[in-house]
Amino acid sequence: MNAEPDVPAYRAPTLTDVAKLAGVSVATASKAINGRDEVKAATRERVLKAAELLSFAPNALAQGLLRGRTGTVGLLTSDLEGRFSIPILMGAEDASGAGQVSVFLCDARGDAIREVYHVRALLSRRVDGLIVVGSRTDPRPPLAGTIPVPVVYVYAPSANPDDISITVDNVGGGRLAVEHLLACGRRNIAHITGESSYKAARDRADGAVAALADVGLSMLGGKPYYGSWHETWGRAAAHIVVEQHPEVDAVFCGSDQIARGVLETLRDLGRDVPGAISVIGFDNWEAVAAHSRPRLTSIDMNLERLGAAASQHLFAAIDGGVPPTSEQFPGRVVMRDSTAPNR
Amino acid sequence: MNAEPDVPAYRAPTLTDVAKLAGVSVATASKAINGRDEVKAATRERVLKAAELLSFAPNALAQGLLRGRTGTVGLLTSDLEGRFSIPILMGAEDASGAGQVSVFLCDARGDAIREVYHVRALLSRRVDGLIVVGSRTDPRPPLAGTIPVPVVYVYAPSANPDDISITVDNVGGGRLAVEHLLACGRRNIAHITGESSYKAARDRADGAVAALADVGLSMLGGKPYYGSWHETWGRAAAHIVVEQHPEVDAVFCGSDQIARGVLETLRDLGRDVPGAISVIGFDNWEAVAAHSRPRLTSIDMNLERLGAAASQHLFAAIDGGVPPTSEQFPGRVVMRDSTAPNR
Repeated sequence: MNAEPDVPAYRAPTLTDVAKLAGVSVATASKAINGRDEVKAATRERVLKAAELLSFAPNALAQGLLRGRTGTVGLLTSDLEGRFSIPILMGAEDASGAGQVSVFLCDARGDAIREVYHVRALLSRRVDGLIVVGSRTDPRPPLAGTIPVPVVYVYAPSANPDDISITVDNVGGGRLAVEHLLACGRRNIAHITGESSYKAARDRADGAVAALADVGLSMLGGKPYYGSWHETWGRAAAHIVVEQHPEVDAVFCGSDQIARGVLETLRDLGRDVPGAISVIGFDNWEAVAAHSRPRLTSIDMNLERLGAAASQHLFAAIDGGVPPTSEQFPGRVVMRDSTAPNR
Repeated sequence: MNAEPDVPAYRAPTLTDVAKLAGVSVATASKAINGRDEVKAATRERVLKAAELLSFAPNALAQGLLRGRTGTVGLLTSDLEGRFSIPILMGAEDASGAGQVSVFLCDARGDAIREVYHVRALLSRRVDGLIVVGSRTDPRPPLAGTIPVPVVYVYAPSANPDDISITVDNVGGGRLAVEHLLACGRRNIAHITGESSYKAARDRADGAVAALADVGLSMLGGKPYYGSWHETWGRAAAHIVVEQHPEVDAVFCGSDQIARGVLETLRDLGRDVPGAISVIGFDNWEAVAAHSRPRLTSIDMNLERLGAAASQHLFAAIDGGVPPTSEQFPGRVVMRDSTAPNR
């Protein structure tokens, strides 16, 4: 817009303006614009002419009100800065058909009060449904109060099993990672991961333990090395593992950042990756995995697919057919240069 | 929501439903709900009672239509996956007053046709204004077509100087970085940066050259080492710089990722950072800067402040007072462990 100093504040023409100009009631103007039969042809023409003169575009919003639908969805996230919300959001946006549905985005920043506030604002804007994206995989309390529209929880499931939750299969992801290392011929596999207070850390470890048990093995050291999600822990833990278990020939890391730290320590110690020790990460975070030395093999959680599924499930719930159910999505191995068969 | 299999599709009650139940016209129901004087007290009471029975909440959306305002803003971004949009978006959300204004988020993914489509969808939803966030600092063409609401461009300015653009002062940022290195007593300063096709790269280099010229110095090698924004280039370029200019005592990097690569090479070469060589990055990307060895000093672009300013300027334009103008924001030095005074 090229705003001129003397242009008054912009005000969109309303249905009332159109009705006034056409000399009809608001109800008649509304019926005419929405193509209902109850209006005479001449009246409709007069209303449409007035609408045109006022640049009263067919208004998705007003039409939605008349149909009892707004074509808008609220997306409530709790950590926009984290890396998990964005691919989910993009998947949801894609699935809902460009322009068919618009997404209101709110970030509660992990604050319950802010969340209540946002939900109220979204409902007052008559969203047709809500997608709630969590920042960790631990179950979260369902939205407070009575929510009169369908809700789908993504990444973090609702603690209420009757709710629709779309989540990552972290147990399966841990299993995938270890099965890949086993396929590379590795037998002495350590697991360095994040805080044990995170369900994601415990689930991935459970999957890893199960995959090892399937072939009669156990984790090096007998249990996971829990610590933090950061590189710093990866660096320190790699030192500990190599010292305690010099026979280590593979490390499964609970995040790409941990894996990056592990790679750095192994490099400092002169251990060859992937030859002597293969390393696999988790998250497939491009910025880390594609630029480490060597480039990092990792488990991708398919977050865009989660977002797309959330959107599809939400619309199924809004349309009121067969009620959608919760769903878990498996990850996949993205192979780069940090894992290889035994020499 | 706990959807039962036999619950019909959710349909919000409309003003028409309320009017029907109260036995009045839609126009009267509307006036009653919006507290206008033209309605008799008894009628108003009947309408409000009907609205209550139907759970027809005071509807921000419908009320907005009547006032010619919707209280919604469209935020059009072109790279949600990039790291720049999110802090801008958060700043804009904060500034607009929680719940007062809702933000429609659309990601055009750098595609002009998709952008036209999104803009049309947003306008049909009667947004009060648009915030357009670019992914690089090069000027972008203004939105196509006639946009009947105010528009504010953020990060990437509009190519039309009459538009309102809120941008980062990259020349100033380059100057800040070099002035910090000079303050540490460094004199032999190299500049390793991204692709020269990016205005951000050229602007930061210009600022660096100017700051050096102020004290009678020039860049080591006579000009910037342009390459790519990635670590890989940082690693390679650091080798080149150390070989060509063994006297190097500081490196200003055009991004934190480049800086990270530089730190790794200097470590491989046994050069002490920050003692022998001080390194400063650009972006203050926490995930990189806070976990590198040593932790990285960097220039922060204050993106949240940009977002907040965009939002404030947009509302000023919507309110139609003194027309807001374009604005540039300076960055700031965030000191960590990779820069220090000469020993």
